[in-house]
Amino acid sequence: MAMGQIIKGKPVADKIKEELIKEVEELKARGINPKLTIVRVGARGDDLAYERGALKRCDSIGILTEVKELPEDITQEEYISEIKKINEDPATHGILCFRPLPKQLDEEVIKYVIAPEKDIDCFSPVNAAKVMEGDKSGFSPCTPTAVVEILKHYGVDLTGKKVVVLGRSMVVGKPAAMLLLNENATVTICHSKTKDLDLVTREADVLVAAVGRAKMVKENFIKDGAVVIDVGINVDENGNLCGDVDTDVVKDKVSMITPVPGGVGSVTTSILAKHVIKACKMQNNA
Amino acid sequence: MAMGQIIKGKPVADKIKEELIKEVEELKARGINPKLTIVRVGARGDDLAYERGALKRCDSIGILTEVKELPEDITQEEYISEIKKINEDPATHGILCFRPLPKQLDEEVIKYVIAPEKDIDCFSPVNAAKVMEGDKSGFSPCTPTAVVEILKHYGVDLTGKKVVVLGRSMVVGKPAAMLLLNENATVTICHSKTKDLDLVTREADVLVAAVGRAKMVKENFIKDGAVVIDVGINVDENGNLCGDVDTDVVKDKVSMITPVPGGVGSVTTSILAKHVIKACKMQNNA
Repeated sequence: MAMGQIIKGKPVADKIKEELIKEVEELKARGINPKLTIVRVGARGDDLAYERGALKRCDSIGILTEVKELPEDITQEEYISEIKKINEDPATHGILCFRPLPKQLDEEVIKYVIAPEKDIDCFSPVNAAKVMEGDKSGFSPCTPTAVVEILKHYGVDLTGKKVVVLGRSMVVGKPAAMLLLNENATVTICHSKTKDLDLVTREADVLVAAVGRAKMVKENFIKDGAVVIDVGINVDENGNLCGDVDTDVVKDKVSMITPVPGGVGSVTTSILAKHVIKACKMQNNA
Repeated sequence: MAMGQIIKGKPVADKIKEELIKEVEELKARGINPKLTIVRVGARGDDLAYERGALKRCDSIGILTEVKELPEDITQEEYISEIKKINEDPATHGILCFRPLPKQLDEEVIKYVIAPEKDIDCFSPVNAAKVMEGDKSGFSPCTPTAVVEILKHYGVDLTGKKVVVLGRSMVVGKPAAMLLLNENATVTICHSKTKDLDLVTREADVLVAAVGRAKMVKENFIKDGAVVIDVGINVDENGNLCGDVDTDVVKDKVSMITPVPGGVGSVTTSILAKHVIKACKMQNNA
């Protein structure tokens, strides 16, 4: 069989960026300056890495940014008071709270505090419910939204297709399933308790792997000609970044596959930026 | 093959009732009287039928009930003000709002008004999000919850099983998928756009039919020995009640199947009563 096409995130991100630059210009011409505020507690490595990417992306599009770095030992009351201040600040249109939060902060309480209309990465239950309802007035989480954007960009028609989502987290698996269902796919959600997992995933026209286990998806998991979206970001035995899919062994079997790095991860900050602008427009009736 | 077992809702409802009677006795011994308030606009036939069943069930368990019948031409402001009054009334623990609401009432606004802790049939987005998250502190919608209760009652182990949900409504299909996922099933959601629907449903160890089309599920949709839960309530060409499944033609192929009437529909008001008591206990820290 012909080798599968490696479908990169960059062209998708570039196209979104182009569209957003125009939208920002139009907003600025009306005196509106879209702004993202990132709320970070402490200085965890992966938060900092994502933050750098997000700031760079926003900057290149013309979105203002601010980072609230809060002390690692911040109390729940102080954290909530910070979020409320940003909720009420008309200059900020989108808020990204890095999670998981440290132990003393109760996410189950805090998620109700962030203003749903500024909650651009689906922390608030109001936005989670909208994802489930297929209500596009809300904000879906950036990573599963990036999955759908990539599929659309590369012309993968989802209507009636068998899509298998491997993983059932609230960050990726479940919202991805709901977003793909909304695109009229027939969606199956698999997980650690699924029996004969390889037989189930082998039915997939489109396989979305989001389990966080390095290279666990092997050749026998894949139907000939399937499209594979690899959401995992793991470190392999040699210390290199890798996905949930063993790309080397499946690449001759698939029709398209996203790489890791350079796949889904390169699109998430573009979705973040897109959501900031959507929030900004909604808040300004623009 | 042996004829499939018809699994009725009544034994499930009876068992729940028994448990709830004990719980109500314990609450009453502490001076706590669980109460359901039903909010009905106008007098639609299906609302009245469900109401009769709900009142009878609550009465038999010892739950107090009240029906607020509101005029068909009620304004949004008046409706919201009624809901707020009940939200704040400490004597009511559970609120059931009949839906769909008449045109002049905007459900998308009103669903945010009902107090999530009294919202026993998952009208509020807070409870929808909890269903998606698998957070059991909320209230799942009564019908899909009845589906899971029936399966558990009849000893159907869901872990790792292939469950196919036919239908993707917010009332049944999507929440059923989330609840079944939470029981560790491998869940597939099918709908009108699914290709080769019969081939997909024929993979199911457990098939949940919730599309609202009379007898559309035929023999070729069913795997030998499957368990079938029929959520549909339709009227056939002779004016008789029937489900989404053509029971006569599939009954020799399935291992178990719920009847219509007498299946899922007989359990929903028991779930409603269960949720009233759960709400009452939470509101009283009991």
